[in-house]
Amino acid sequence: MKRVYNFNAGPSAMPLEVLKQVQEEFLDFAHTGMSIVEISHRSAAYQAMQDDTVCMLRRLLRIPDGYHIVFIQGGGSMQFIMHAANFLKHRGAYINTGVWSDKAMQAAAFYGETYEAASSKADHFTYIPEAGSAVIKPDTDYVYITSNNTIHGTEWHDFPSCNVPLFCDMSSDFLSRPVDISRFDLVYAGVQKNVGPAGVVVTIIKDSLLVQANSQLPLMLQYKTYVDHDSTYNTPPVFNIYFVNKVLHWLDAQGGLKEIEKRNIQKAHILYQVIDESDGFYKGHAVPQSRSRMNVTFNLPTPALEAEFVAQAAEASLIGLKGHRSIGGCRASIYNAVTEEGCQALAAFMMKFQKNH
Amino acid sequence: MKRVYNFNAGPSAMPLEVLKQVQEEFLDFAHTGMSIVEISHRSAAYQAMQDDTVCMLRRLLRIPDGYHIVFIQGGGSMQFIMHAANFLKHRGAYINTGVWSDKAMQAAAFYGETYEAASSKADHFTYIPEAGSAVIKPDTDYVYITSNNTIHGTEWHDFPSCNVPLFCDMSSDFLSRPVDISRFDLVYAGVQKNVGPAGVVVTIIKDSLLVQANSQLPLMLQYKTYVDHDSTYNTPPVFNIYFVNKVLHWLDAQGGLKEIEKRNIQKAHILYQVIDESDGFYKGHAVPQSRSRMNVTFNLPTPALEAEFVAQAAEASLIGLKGHRSIGGCRASIYNAVTEEGCQALAAFMMKFQKNH
Repeated sequence: MKRVYNFNAGPSAMPLEVLKQVQEEFLDFAHTGMSIVEISHRSAAYQAMQDDTVCMLRRLLRIPDGYHIVFIQGGGSMQFIMHAANFLKHRGAYINTGVWSDKAMQAAAFYGETYEAASSKADHFTYIPEAGSAVIKPDTDYVYITSNNTIHGTEWHDFPSCNVPLFCDMSSDFLSRPVDISRFDLVYAGVQKNVGPAGVVVTIIKDSLLVQANSQLPLMLQYKTYVDHDSTYNTPPVFNIYFVNKVLHWLDAQGGLKEIEKRNIQKAHILYQVIDESDGFYKGHAVPQSRSRMNVTFNLPTPALEAEFVAQAAEASLIGLKGHRSIGGCRASIYNAVTEEGCQALAAFMMKFQKNH
Repeated sequence: MKRVYNFNAGPSAMPLEVLKQVQEEFLDFAHTGMSIVEISHRSAAYQAMQDDTVCMLRRLLRIPDGYHIVFIQGGGSMQFIMHAANFLKHRGAYINTGVWSDKAMQAAAFYGETYEAASSKADHFTYIPEAGSAVIKPDTDYVYITSNNTIHGTEWHDFPSCNVPLFCDMSSDFLSRPVDISRFDLVYAGVQKNVGPAGVVVTIIKDSLLVQANSQLPLMLQYKTYVDHDSTYNTPPVFNIYFVNKVLHWLDAQGGLKEIEKRNIQKAHILYQVIDESDGFYKGHAVPQSRSRMNVTFNLPTPALEAEFVAQAAEASLIGLKGHRSIGGCRASIYNAVTEEGCQALAAFMMKFQKNH
């Protein structure tokens, strides 16, 4: 069996131990005599698994009372609609740090007034605006941020404090570090980076926000439907949630979010060090204080060299290093499941490539 | 490894050959060195798989030119919204054959006027109304039907002809028989009965209908978004689609839809015969001419006996025979992957149970 070093931006590397476990029990889930893809979502076996998933999320993230956790289909793009459909009444503020916050703002505009409270667009999204620089207009329903920006390789390291509800798309750094959930009113994360197979979003919603939701919406667009029916108003994506459950147990066994954060800092350091010590051969896209620990974005001296870099890396089983089509360049996504060994292999390749060019 | 006879209504039994294949290649998809849950949806390997899935659907169902096939998250419940959001302009006609058509009609009412063109509600949904009995009002945008009714165990055996577009929720008998798609303008099916793991819907849409769609909708609620972006506007549920692909190839290897229909007729016959020859001990819910080949619904003389039947069956590894909570009784769901051997085991159990009571 061949396995490569997977630096895909998402869907992306999953822990090998989890893959093996899922594989092993694929024909017989929890001694039911059925595959996980064959069990009823109304069965005790399913419910126990879903309950455990919620419980593990609460435990790993230390989610306080007063929040519900639900599973929703449609990816982040459906959340771009739902957050606004449910909560945009007067105006929504967006801190624009790249493509994803921009898309969220555009989608939200269908439901009401939106505005940029801060933005790093003029500087090609190379940094996260200072938390205090956001200008919040009166009657703002919420401030919306994207905690990590896969395309530009920036990440919030210190979340803003607002006196309006704070919403956060955590899709690309969810469970990569401890986060104080009590600072947020709505958090959501498509699982396909750090947590599982594409097809489910984890949404964490504060009860005091939920009661203010717009109820003049189709049921499937209301967060309340998912909360009231414990994510099983209709058939949930059983396999996807099950896989998330396995990843949560894996995370716990690794030592939880503090330990995983430590590893992620170390992994990112390995790659940023190569960039910083390359005398400008590798040029990081993000300014150092806004650098993402999940997506390391960089350029080489020319697009031709970048293409050669990506191709030669692939030959060396280092996969997925091409930058997003919207900004080009190179990107190494080093989510939880990417090992330090993988980062060292890439660092060694980068140094060798530089030497040869 | 224990395997049971799985009569769940959905999620439900999947072909054992497919489960084994998915299991076998779970760590290395198509020699990429990555699991199917780890590959990028922008990769050539993914695109080839998705293209093949579309191609196999076209081939098995003989879908004519002039239709697009897309993959959408959110289950049938999201389609209950989308069909109306996109196409309900004046009024939508619903032939009400049970809970699912009723829910679709209710969800659609958010977007405009809906009405029952025919209904078997007064007779506890024991039959499918005569195709010709529907009363279609002027300015009706479409007629909506549910091809198979999991809860009541009825199925359309002869589709209605209308002079307005015909929409069909085929979730629970999709790919269980050949269907003339050219008679429909919109067909959708949640895959979790006959075709794959919960988390993706296959939607087949006629191009001449699509051009009439409402464009004043959030992008994620427009069918056009999925068509224009070939189902990858955002990250699709990769694993779920991949599994569907495997099932399609399995179906093809079995001899296609004509052969699977033959088997399904035979399997249903085995169970209905036990019911019909039980001197009223087992009482079928559906009238004979509307009987479903997918969901065999029946009652025993008393609810207490039904509970005993379900419990004893489970002890004999015959799982999932409890009827839907809304109507009670018993139900054997015998989708494509349920074997004739499984049906015979259940038939033998039913006869023995009757003899003992």
